[in-house]
Parts: sequence; C-alpha cells; structure tokens
Amino acid sequence: MSDEGLEALRVELQEFSRERDWEQFHTPKNLSMALAGEVGELLEIFQWLTPEQAAEVMGSSRAEDVRDELADVTIYLVRLADMLGVDLLEVAHAKLERNRERFPPTQVNGRADVPPVEL
Amino acid sequence: MSDEGLEALRVELQEFSRERDWEQFHTPKNLSMALAGEVGELLEIFQWLTPEQAAEVMGSSRAEDVRDELADVTIYLVRLADMLGVDLLEVAHAKLERNRERFPPTQVNGRADVPPVEL
Amino acid sequence: MSDEGLEALRVELQEFSRERDWEQFHTPKNLSMALAGEVGELLEIFQWLTPEQAAEVMGSSRAEDVRDELADVTIYLVRLADMLGVDLLEVAHAKLERNRERFPPTQVNGRADVPPVEL
Amino acid sequence: MSDEGLEALRVELQEFSRERDWEQFHTPKNLSMALAGEVGELLEIFQWLTPEQAAEVMGSSRAEDVRDELADVTIYLVRLADMLGVDLLEVAHAKLERNRERFPPTQVNGRADVPPVEL
Repeated sequence: MSDEGLEALRVELQEFSRERDWEQFHTPKNLSMALAGEVGELLEIFQWLTPEQAAEVMGSSRAEDVRDELADVTIYLVRLADMLGVDLLEVAHAKLERNRERFPPTQVNGRADVPPVEL
Repeated sequence: MSDEGLEALRVELQEFSRERDWEQFHTPKNLSMALAGEVGELLEIFQWLTPEQAAEVMGSSRAEDVRDELADVTIYLVRLADMLGVDLLEVAHAKLERNRERFPPTQVNGRADVPPVEL
Repeated sequence: MSDEGLEALRVELQEFSRERDWEQFHTPKNLSMALAGEVGELLEIFQWLTPEQAAEVMGSSRAEDVRDELADVTIYLVRLADMLGVDLLEVAHAKLERNRERFPPTQVNGRADVPPVEL
Repeated sequence: MSDEGLEALRVELQEFSRERDWEQFHTPKNLSMALAGEVGELLEIFQWLTPEQAAEVMGSSRAEDVRDELADVTIYLVRLADMLGVDLLEVAHAKLERNRERFPPTQVNGRADVPPVEL
C-alpha cells in the first residue's frame, strides 16, 4: 500500500468540499450514514458469492466495483475523521496495541469463539 | 493526520493475524461483514443525537467511543483491502479525480439534490 | 398497517426462491449481508437531508425509493427469519416487554442519554 | 410465523415511545441509523462463522442473541415505517410481484450472477 497521501487525501477532500459548498452536508451524522451506505454497497458485491468466489473477486468482472466501493469507504472515513478531529492512524495503532494485550496469541490461537473476537 | 503508518499498519495487522492463527477468518466476506458491524457501532453513537450534539461529540463523554469505533473501522478496512490486494490511497485518489469531473463546482454548488450526490 | 400477510409473505418468498433455484444462496450469512445492503440503500436516501427534509420525504420525489427500500428490507428480514426458524413478531413482542421493564417511563422520560438507549 | 400482531406491534411501539417522551428522537434519519446499527449487531454474530456454523447457529449458544437482534431490527423497521406512513406488507408484496416479472424462473434458474440479483 502506498504510504504517502493519507494526509494529502484529507486536505484534498477539504478543498473538494469547499469548492462545491458541500461542507454544510458533512456533519458527523450525515457522514456516518454515507459511510454505512458505501459499506452496504461493498456487502452487496460479496453477498451471493461463495467463499471461494469471493476470494477470487479481484480476478472477476466485479474487481473494478470492489475498488470503487473501497475508494468510497476510504473517502468518507477520512472525511468523517477530519470533521471529528480524529487521526485515524493514531487511533488504529493504539487500538491494535490494546488488542495485542486483550488477545494473547497463546490463549486465542485459531479460535474465533473467544468473545469478543476482533481482528 | 499523521502520514506515516498506513503501510506499517497493514504489515502489523498481517503479523497480528498470523500470530493468532486468525488468517483463516479473514476472508473478504467475513471482513466486509466485520467492517459493516463496526460502522454500525459508530452509527449507534450518533443515532439519537441532534445535529448540534453530534457536532460536539468529541467534547462529550462519548469521545473515546468515537475514537474506538473509528479505529476498528480503519483496522478492518485496511485488512480487507490487504486481503484483496487493493491500495486504498490509490483508489481513493483515482475516485476523487473522477468525482471532480462528474461534479463541476459551478453545476453542483451547495446542492445535495444532484443525483447521485457524493462527497 | 395491514395485519394479514406476514405469514403469507413468508410462504411466497419460499415459493419464489424455490422456483428460481435460489435457495442455495439464502444462507444466514448471505441474507444478513443482503439485509445490510438494503438498509445501506435506505440510509443513502436520508444521508444528505436535513431533519426537516427527511420528515417530508414521503411528499418528495424520493417517496417511491423509500417504499422500495423498505420493501427490500422487509423481504430479506422475513426470509432470513424463516431460514433461522425465528418468528419475528414473537421475538419483537418479547423484546418490547423486556424494554418496558428496562426503561420505566418515570426514569427515562425524554432522555436519550440513558445507556443503552433503545426504542 | 404468527400472523397476528404486526399492526398490534406498531400501535404498541407508538404507546411505548409516547410514554417515555421518546417520539422526539424517532425521526426518519435517526430510526434508519438505529435500524442499521441493529443490523450491524446481527452481522457481528455471523461474521466469523463458517457457512456450516452459521446454518447451525440456532442450535448454538448464540441462538438467543440472534433472536434478540432480529427483534430489534423488526422493532426499528416497524417504527420507521410507521413514522413514514408506509405499510410494510403492502410494499413488500408489491415489490415481490415486480420481482416475479423481472426475474422469470426460466431465465435466472440457479444463477446469482444475473445483475441485479435480488431475493
């Protein structure tokens, strides 16, 4: 994954929104709904596929749709975080650190039934 | 937003999953469901708030919950993209470029009723 | 709301699925994803509307879209419940009964900040 | 599925909300978010299960959780439809009728790749 550009994307989205006078729509409630809507479109790509078909989706005719929905999810997530003043990478790293402690490898090895199970 | 670490996060999630033998659960179907589940938790924070209350959420007792859910959404999004071999920043920038052409500022200024309306 | 037809709808959906050999797709995982996808489409209708515009949506050009998405959500919910052997009305009534006890009117009157806040 | 009670449930939800002065929270935007939040909780139950485990979920320790989430989804769906003045059974039956024409059995038999694929 390219490592440059998350901050650049955040700034570009600000500019994009300002140029269109769309900032008024970008409230936390609205953006969280938009984020959920795009995740819903992502689910629709996978919903009827077998696990095997889903694993091969990037070699199928739906590959471009997958990229498109992942782009939309990323865009709304970055915009929402910006409006809330949250640094996504900072919170993600902090959460991962907590998860390392909550789920020691020796206790959860290969088990998805240890509630709550998280990445 | 910090600009380092998206690639680092991707690699850390690989390692985290491998250490716990959780790679078997990280299929595209499963991860898209997990992503939707976390977005659902984010919605739950905002659902009963007025627009004004939602705008002030980071100064409220729910601020840590917001950060926590944004972290989870980021984590699952990065992991899903990794399993699909998609570069989130690359597709997001490409999509934003297309949106610039689809929605010229002079045509959509301040309007959310131009379908489809997107960020 | 018409009171006949929930059981009829369940049976019609069985027949509809069997006639198209689509039963193989109607697993709990797939149907829950489809349900989430349709709810996502519903969110997309409301996401950029002000609270006032959303309250007037059934008098707008989006009224048919709202009906369409509510229909899809109902269909997938009824189908999912059928595949799981769950009686939606029975569980909803039982849950409402529990909520009456969890949220006594005198304690929660007009407050959405009593966690967990539920309908 | 019991066939009485959908209209009764609608009326009970009105009464339940009025007694708690919660009607102010039950706008279309808020209720659609709450609906999505509950569907997210449903997804979380199924997300790490194999198709086989998901098919057996009602015989597992998660059965009560499934019933609980289906109850919540039903409750918010009925309440949202009531606030919008939509008869869920009427629109579901109408949609199913259109789907019968859009997807003739002889054309779609056993295929989930005919876009858009719907129940």
